[in-house]
Amino acid sequence: MAEGVVRRPTTVTRVQVVEGERAVERPDRLVTEEPLAIRVHGAGQEAQPLAVTMRTPGADFDLAVGFCLTEGVISSPAAVAEVAYCLRGERTQEYNEVTVRLREPIDLGELERRFVANASCGICGKTALDQLEVQCAPVGAGPTVPRSVVVKLPTLLRDAQTVFEVTGGLHAAGAFDVHGGLRIVREDIGRHNALDKVIGSAARDGLLPLAGDVLVVSGRMSFEIVQKAAVAGIPILCAVSAPSSLAVEAAARFGQTVVGFLRDDRFNVYTHPERIDLAS
Amino acid sequence: MAEGVVRRPTTVTRVQVVEGERAVERPDRLVTEEPLAIRVHGAGQEAQPLAVTMRTPGADFDLAVGFCLTEGVISSPAAVAEVAYCLRGERTQEYNEVTVRLREPIDLGELERRFVANASCGICGKTALDQLEVQCAPVGAGPTVPRSVVVKLPTLLRDAQTVFEVTGGLHAAGAFDVHGGLRIVREDIGRHNALDKVIGSAARDGLLPLAGDVLVVSGRMSFEIVQKAAVAGIPILCAVSAPSSLAVEAAARFGQTVVGFLRDDRFNVYTHPERIDLAS
Repeated sequence: MAEGVVRRPTTVTRVQVVEGERAVERPDRLVTEEPLAIRVHGAGQEAQPLAVTMRTPGADFDLAVGFCLTEGVISSPAAVAEVAYCLRGERTQEYNEVTVRLREPIDLGELERRFVANASCGICGKTALDQLEVQCAPVGAGPTVPRSVVVKLPTLLRDAQTVFEVTGGLHAAGAFDVHGGLRIVREDIGRHNALDKVIGSAARDGLLPLAGDVLVVSGRMSFEIVQKAAVAGIPILCAVSAPSSLAVEAAARFGQTVVGFLRDDRFNVYTHPERIDLAS
Repeated sequence: MAEGVVRRPTTVTRVQVVEGERAVERPDRLVTEEPLAIRVHGAGQEAQPLAVTMRTPGADFDLAVGFCLTEGVISSPAAVAEVAYCLRGERTQEYNEVTVRLREPIDLGELERRFVANASCGICGKTALDQLEVQCAPVGAGPTVPRSVVVKLPTLLRDAQTVFEVTGGLHAAGAFDVHGGLRIVREDIGRHNALDKVIGSAARDGLLPLAGDVLVVSGRMSFEIVQKAAVAGIPILCAVSAPSSLAVEAAARFGQTVVGFLRDDRFNVYTHPERIDLAS
């Protein structure tokens, strides 16, 4: 692909549609998947490569800032001085490469050593939970949410998605208030990226912590989703499908309410049911 | 969790089931999610940490070997001398930590430098495809598969899953022959792990390349799935849901057939339709 080309969230292709014994060729749209390289630039330092994630283009700055926060690279949105696409030569922007410039120097080697030390022996779910505990405090008591709002959330999330409609292939994460009002929605081919985009957007708008919000994610809920939500202080987490064992353990420990298998007027509550108001 | 405890693929919990205004508490099973640390032990070297992946316990050795192959750490199953859980003290096995012992020394630093060099500037889908080209050759012509077999694959995959049934929350990958005969099936909370387990199992049984096989994955098809399948030489890839733009680009370049949205007697063919026999 040429340098300096803005990436779009969908890509046009041709497809052979087979139905019974008939095959018809027609145009189709795919979800775009492209690598995004995230670099951090500490004050007075050289810019350093941090990570490469496969993502759907769109909200790249939100993704970069959200990733830095939820992976513990920075501890507050105030650490960020500027976010920008990298320049190739003097003028051409490189739309698959974002640099997060920080107000202070940063020691990425220290982050890496901490990770390797934790990972190199005896790792288990408890290790993962202990690491999370170092990174963030349990969420506050937070609000309660009416059952009648909870059951509407998957439809509200789907209605807010713009790219899914044409491709059928995108995850979404949405932050809602307890009346079902949409605060932020983001889409991505990766569920974790969609959530990083929501959290990064909130960070850039000065809205963190999301202590009064309800998070809804399409699909399943893994440990990673709970961990990222905990860093953002989100008290209520809903998934359309199943949570994992470690997702439930983590949410129980961090005081978060987990709702799963949210379909029609039915759902399961795995942790902290006191935040769901069944009577309203 | 205690050391030396075998991890199971499901975990028992209690859940509050909400249906309308009624809530009933009952036992439930969750998919287990636990970190697995993979270490490589080059001949005459110290063991080195390679990666930590969140996975569902089961087929851990397959996962470790498959990961080493599909991520380009080793280029052939013959490179593996032994796979074992790590020992804590003299006797207690550590079931979340696997060491892959190699017949030759290995330079992990070289792998890392190659990755960072490629990732540090101008990264795009083309870079990812070029990297893949370094790692593996295009797949061979391979077999054709009857349409009547293709439409049955999602049901055959689901029937072969053992853990999904009780939890509703697991991805699966399956290798089938062109008559719909099951060769290998593996489940995991991560789609990429399920595929690494299939490829690692084939490697350990001397079955690579899977040049006559049809791969079926639950859910969506990303670049990572196509890349791993290309390393294993798999010519036909089917997904129950949508492929991404880069998945289709990669498969086109590597000569693989991609089938998506495989539901009832209907599916889309995105690349190399010549391997699908519509008339039978």
